[in-house]
Amino acid sequence: MQFHLNGFQPGDPEISDPAERIQVSGAPGTVPEQVDVLIVGCGPAGLTLATQLAQFSDIKTCIVEQKPERLLVGQADGIACRTMEMFHAYGFSERVLKEAYWVNETTFWRPDDLAPGKIVRSGRVQDVEDGLSEFPHVILNQARIHDGFLDVMRKSPARLEPYYSRRLLDLEVDPAAGPADHAVTVRLERIDAANEGKVETIKARYVVGCDGARSTVRKSIGRELHGDSANHAWGVMDVLAVTDFPDIRFKALIQSAKDGSLLIIPREGGYMVRIYVELAKLDVGERVANRNITADDVIAKARRILKPHTLEVKEIAWWSVYEIGQRLTDKFDDVPEAEIATRLPRIFIAGDACHTHSPKAGQGMNVSMQDAFNLGWKLAVVIGKRCAPSLLHSYSAERQAVAKELIDFDREWAGILASAAKAGGADAARTQDYFVRHGRYTAGTATHYRPSVLTGAASHQHLAQGFVIGTRFHSAPVIRLADAKPVHLGHAAQADGRFRIYAFSRAEDPAAAGSAIRALCDFLTEARESPVKRYTPAGADIDSVIDLRAVFQQDHRELALAAMPPLLLPRKGRYDLIDYEKMFCSDLKSGHDVFAMRGIDREAGCMVVVRPDQYIAQVLPLDGFAGLASYFDGFMLQAR
Amino acid sequence: MQFHLNGFQPGDPEISDPAERIQVSGAPGTVPEQVDVLIVGCGPAGLTLATQLAQFSDIKTCIVEQKPERLLVGQADGIACRTMEMFHAYGFSERVLKEAYWVNETTFWRPDDLAPGKIVRSGRVQDVEDGLSEFPHVILNQARIHDGFLDVMRKSPARLEPYYSRRLLDLEVDPAAGPADHAVTVRLERIDAANEGKVETIKARYVVGCDGARSTVRKSIGRELHGDSANHAWGVMDVLAVTDFPDIRFKALIQSAKDGSLLIIPREGGYMVRIYVELAKLDVGERVANRNITADDVIAKARRILKPHTLEVKEIAWWSVYEIGQRLTDKFDDVPEAEIATRLPRIFIAGDACHTHSPKAGQGMNVSMQDAFNLGWKLAVVIGKRCAPSLLHSYSAERQAVAKELIDFDREWAGILASAAKAGGADAARTQDYFVRHGRYTAGTATHYRPSVLTGAASHQHLAQGFVIGTRFHSAPVIRLADAKPVHLGHAAQADGRFRIYAFSRAEDPAAAGSAIRALCDFLTEARESPVKRYTPAGADIDSVIDLRAVFQQDHRELALAAMPPLLLPRKGRYDLIDYEKMFCSDLKSGHDVFAMRGIDREAGCMVVVRPDQYIAQVLPLDGFAGLASYFDGFMLQAR
Repeated sequence: MQFHLNGFQPGDPEISDPAERIQVSGAPGTVPEQVDVLIVGCGPAGLTLATQLAQFSDIKTCIVEQKPERLLVGQADGIACRTMEMFHAYGFSERVLKEAYWVNETTFWRPDDLAPGKIVRSGRVQDVEDGLSEFPHVILNQARIHDGFLDVMRKSPARLEPYYSRRLLDLEVDPAAGPADHAVTVRLERIDAANEGKVETIKARYVVGCDGARSTVRKSIGRELHGDSANHAWGVMDVLAVTDFPDIRFKALIQSAKDGSLLIIPREGGYMVRIYVELAKLDVGERVANRNITADDVIAKARRILKPHTLEVKEIAWWSVYEIGQRLTDKFDDVPEAEIATRLPRIFIAGDACHTHSPKAGQGMNVSMQDAFNLGWKLAVVIGKRCAPSLLHSYSAERQAVAKELIDFDREWAGILASAAKAGGADAARTQDYFVRHGRYTAGTATHYRPSVLTGAASHQHLAQGFVIGTRFHSAPVIRLADAKPVHLGHAAQADGRFRIYAFSRAEDPAAAGSAIRALCDFLTEARESPVKRYTPAGADIDSVIDLRAVFQQDHRELALAAMPPLLLPRKGRYDLIDYEKMFCSDLKSGHDVFAMRGIDREAGCMVVVRPDQYIAQVLPLDGFAGLASYFDGFMLQAR
Repeated sequence: MQFHLNGFQPGDPEISDPAERIQVSGAPGTVPEQVDVLIVGCGPAGLTLATQLAQFSDIKTCIVEQKPERLLVGQADGIACRTMEMFHAYGFSERVLKEAYWVNETTFWRPDDLAPGKIVRSGRVQDVEDGLSEFPHVILNQARIHDGFLDVMRKSPARLEPYYSRRLLDLEVDPAAGPADHAVTVRLERIDAANEGKVETIKARYVVGCDGARSTVRKSIGRELHGDSANHAWGVMDVLAVTDFPDIRFKALIQSAKDGSLLIIPREGGYMVRIYVELAKLDVGERVANRNITADDVIAKARRILKPHTLEVKEIAWWSVYEIGQRLTDKFDDVPEAEIATRLPRIFIAGDACHTHSPKAGQGMNVSMQDAFNLGWKLAVVIGKRCAPSLLHSYSAERQAVAKELIDFDREWAGILASAAKAGGADAARTQDYFVRHGRYTAGTATHYRPSVLTGAASHQHLAQGFVIGTRFHSAPVIRLADAKPVHLGHAAQADGRFRIYAFSRAEDPAAAGSAIRALCDFLTEARESPVKRYTPAGADIDSVIDLRAVFQQDHRELALAAMPPLLLPRKGRYDLIDYEKMFCSDLKSGHDVFAMRGIDREAGCMVVVRPDQYIAQVLPLDGFAGLASYFDGFMLQAR
C-alpha cells in the first residue's frame, strides 16, 4: 500500500476522502455510575486492556481519556514480532500487516575512515532472525494501532467506546469494602467546552491507571517513578522528504564523526520516514523545552549527520523534542510488599505510568501493551469468578520484573550509542554486534516469567525443549486434521481468557484404544480431579475454560478422524454441533515438522499448558494428570 | 475464525451483535440525471464493475438494484484462485482469506464394491496444484463478497453506493448521438413502499446489464440465451448439521449406487456446510418448481446418499431447488456482428445475463466477475479518453469466447457426473481423473485470450515461457530492492486502470552505463516514440498510465539503489517525492527465483506487458522498443 504521497493524512488510508477518515467517535452521555473496571487513559496499554475486557459481555468496563478524541498523529510506531502475535489473538493482525512498513533489514553507517566528514555503510543485518516468529517486525503510526483496538472493541460483545474529555480528579478506596464490592470511588472532571467543569462520580471494583508517565492514578497510590534524570535531548520527526541517502527505506543507525547519531525508521505508505536526531547533552536538571529547539534545528542537525547525502524536507507530519531517562516504579499495584499476604489489589498501573525509557529501541509501546495483556485476562477471570482474586498479585510481580529488564536494556543500549558517538562512530562494530545479540529481546520474545503459581518448574522441560516454560508459546505451522488446512498452531489462541492445553501425541495412532491421547481425554472427561470437569460451569461449552488441542506426528491422510476421542470432536452450542478444529498434524510436506522444530520427545509426547496471554505455564508428560490437576487447583475456583 | 455455532447470522461475523451486522446501506434520494455508466444489477458482475469504475473520481457511475437492500444470504460461494488474485487488486483479499473456508483437498466417495448400499472413500486429491497461484481456492457466502466490494466502493474516490428498489422499465438509444453523448435514456421504476410507482429517468453514455439470467437489458438489445433446456433438478442447502461422515469439512463428491450424487462444500466459520443433492430427472420443458419439492425432501435424499453415515440437520440457513441447463448469448453488446466496423457499443451485458450453467463446478460467480473486470478498465480508459472507443468491441470478443469454453466445460462435467451416476458410481476413477486434469480450468487460470489489438503474438514467447501471452500474469515472490521486503511481484497490479511493464533484467549490473534496463529507461524517458511520453498527460505522474517495474537477477545486497536509472526512482506527487517501489530482486534466499520459476531467458531478459486486468499482453525483448511503441499505438490516444 502506498499513501501520503501528496501529504500526510491521519486515519484509515483505504478511505479515499481524508475528511471521511476522521470519524467522530467516543461514547455519548455520562459515564456509568458503577463498573467492574475503570481504565484511565486511552493509550496502547489502556486500549489493550479495554479490548480484552470487552470480549466478556458480563464484565462492565469503562475507559476514559483526557484528550477530546482519538489519537490521530503518532508517537510510538515500532511493533515487535511478539506484539504482532498478540494482535493476531485480538483479531487485527491482518490489517496491521497490510498497512505497516516491514522492517526486514537494519543497516549501520559510520564515518568514512578516509574522510571522516562523510558517512559510509559499515554493515547490514537481517532485522529478525529466521524462525523467531511467524510475524515480521513492523512500523505503524501508534494512532492506527489505536484504531485497530477501537474497532475490535466497538464490535465486541461489550460494545465498548471510550469516554473522551475526562480528567481524573481523585480516587478513594473504601478500606472496609469486601473483595466483590465496588470499593473505589473515582471523580472525573469533564473538560470539553459543552460540559466544562461537570464532575462525574464512578464506583469501580478495580481501577487501572494507563495514564502515562505523569500518571495521576500512580500518584494516588503513592508510587513514584525512580531512576536517572534525563540528560540527553533528542529530536524526532515524521517527514516527507527527498534524499539521495540510499537506505532511506531501511531502518538505519547512523553515527557521524562529530555531530552525533541519527536513526532512520521508514514509515508506512512508502513515502514517509521517521528520523530520530541526537541534539545535545543537557545540564543536570535542565529541560529540553527550555532550549527552544525548532523543527529547523532538528532538520539542520540531521543534514549535518547525513553528509554527504542530501535531505530536503517537504512536509513535517509531526515532530517533537524530548529528554527521557530510564525510570521505573517499584510496584504496579496499590498493595505494599509487606501486605501481599493480607490484602488484595484494587488499583493497578500499566505502561508508561510504570516505566519510561528512550524510544529508540522501539520497546515502549510494546511492553505497555504486554503489561495490559497480562493484567486483562487476570481481571477477567477474577471478575468472572473463575480464579481467586489473589491471582491479581501476579500482575505486578511478573510485569515489574520485565520492566526492570527493559530499563536495564535501554540503559545499556543508550550507553553503547553514546560511547560510540563519543568515539566518533569508531565503535560501530560493537553497536552492530549488540544489536544482533539482543534481537530476541527487541522482538519481544525474550520475556521469561519465573516459576510461580501460574508458571511451572522446569521438571519436564526436556519433553519439549523449544517450548520454554515461562516464555511465550512459539507457534509453528501445522495441518488441521479435519480439513487439511495449513494453519499456525499458536493461532488457536485468541484473546478470550481461556487456558489451552496442547497435547503432542506419541508416534502411536492417537485413535487406538490404548493411546496416551485417548487416556488424557478420558481423564479430562471422566476423572473427578479433571480440571475441565472441575472448572467448567454447568451448561457452558466443554472448551470454554480450558481448551484442549491435539497435535499428531502422522500425515493427516493417515489418520481416521471419526475414530478420535470425543473430547477432540466436542459438541458445542445450542445445537450440539461438532467443533472440528481441535486436531492438527505435522506439516510433513512443507518440511516444517512441529515436533522437530520445537524439540518434542517423539516417544513420550507431552502436554504444553498455555495461559490466556499465550505464555507457557507448564510442560508435562502426557500422563501427568496429577500435575495438570494441581496446576489449575493452585489458582482456579470450582465452577458453580 | 469460527462462527455460526448458535445459528446462522448474516453479515460481518466480527461484529458480535447480529443486529449490528445488518447496517442500512444504499444511496439516498433519486438517481442522478446523467451519468457516464449506468450499471443495472448488484450481483458479483455489477459490483465488480462498479468498484472498478469507482476508482476514478472523474467518471460518473450509477449502480441500481431491484432488491430493497444488499444481499444477506448467499447463493454462489466458490472463489477460484484467479478470483482471489483479482480481489487482491481490488484491495480486500485479506478479509476474504481470513473469513473464508479454504479448499485444500477434495475427496471422492463411491459405492462399496462389497456392499453397494454403503459409500466408501475412493480417493483424495490436493484441490489446487502446487504453485498454481499464490492464493488458495476458498468458499465464502456471496453476500460477504458483495460486502467486500461495497466497502471498497464506499471508500473509493467516487464514493459509490447502490440505489436499491429500482426496476428497469426500458431503455432507448438515440441513434443520431455522437460517441461522447449520453445517448442511452433509461427509465427506472421505484418499488419501495415509500416511493412506489415513481419513475426516474437517467441518461447514460454506457449501460451495462448485470441483471441476471432473466436480464431486461439483454432483452432490450434483442439478445437471447441459447442452449439446452434444463432437464435435471438439484437441491442445494446451507445447513448446520451433525454427521458422522468424516469428510464433512472437505469438499467431497459422493456418488451413490442408486440415489444419485451429492456434493459437500464446507463453509466459512467451521460449522456450516453446503450440500448439493441430485434430485430427479425432469421431463422436457418441466420446471422443478412444479414438483413441490420441500427442504425435507432434499434432506431425505441426502441421507439416502450418505448411508451408512448419519445426517441430522439442526438449522437450514438457506435452501433452494433449481434446474439449469447450459445457455449462452452469442454476443455481449448491442452491436451486431456485421456492424462492428461501423458502430460503437453502448450497451453491454455481463455475468448471468450472458451465460448460465450448473453451479457445481463453482465457476459462475467467478466468470461473471472476470467479465466485469475485463469490461471495467476498458470503460474507464475510453471514458478517460486514454483509449479509442473501438477498444470496447474487445469485451464481447474476449469474454464470449471464455463463456463458450465455460459452457462446454460445464456440459462435459455434468455429463461425466451423470454417466458416473448412471453407472452406479463405477466411473468414480474417471470422475476423479477429470477433476484433476481440469484443475487449472476450475481455478480460473486457464483463460487464454487470443491474439488481438490487445494481446500480442507469440513471437517472443521463448523469452519468458512461464508468462504465457493472453493468460493472467502468474505472480511469483521477489524481494523489493529499496527495503528488502518479500513481496509478490504480481501484487504491484492494483485495479487502477494502468498498464504495467515488468522489465526482467539481464544478468549484467542494471545500474551500469550500457545495461539493457538503462537503455529501456532512456527510451521510455526520451524517445519521441515512447508510449510513456506519448500517452501520459502533462502534469500527471510519470507512472499514471504505464507503470514500469524492473526485476533483477542479483541478490538485493549486491545492487546500488542510488545508481539506478531515474525512471525506476520516479519523482511523484505535489512534492516530487521518490517512489521506491519499482525495483525487485530474485528471492534467492528462499529458493524462489522468479527467473527460474517463469522460464525467463537470463541472457536476454525481456519485457512482459500486462493489461489493467492482469492479463499478459506482450512478451518482448528488452530492446523491443518498436514493438512496444506499436502495441500501445494500436489502441491508445495521444495525451492532451
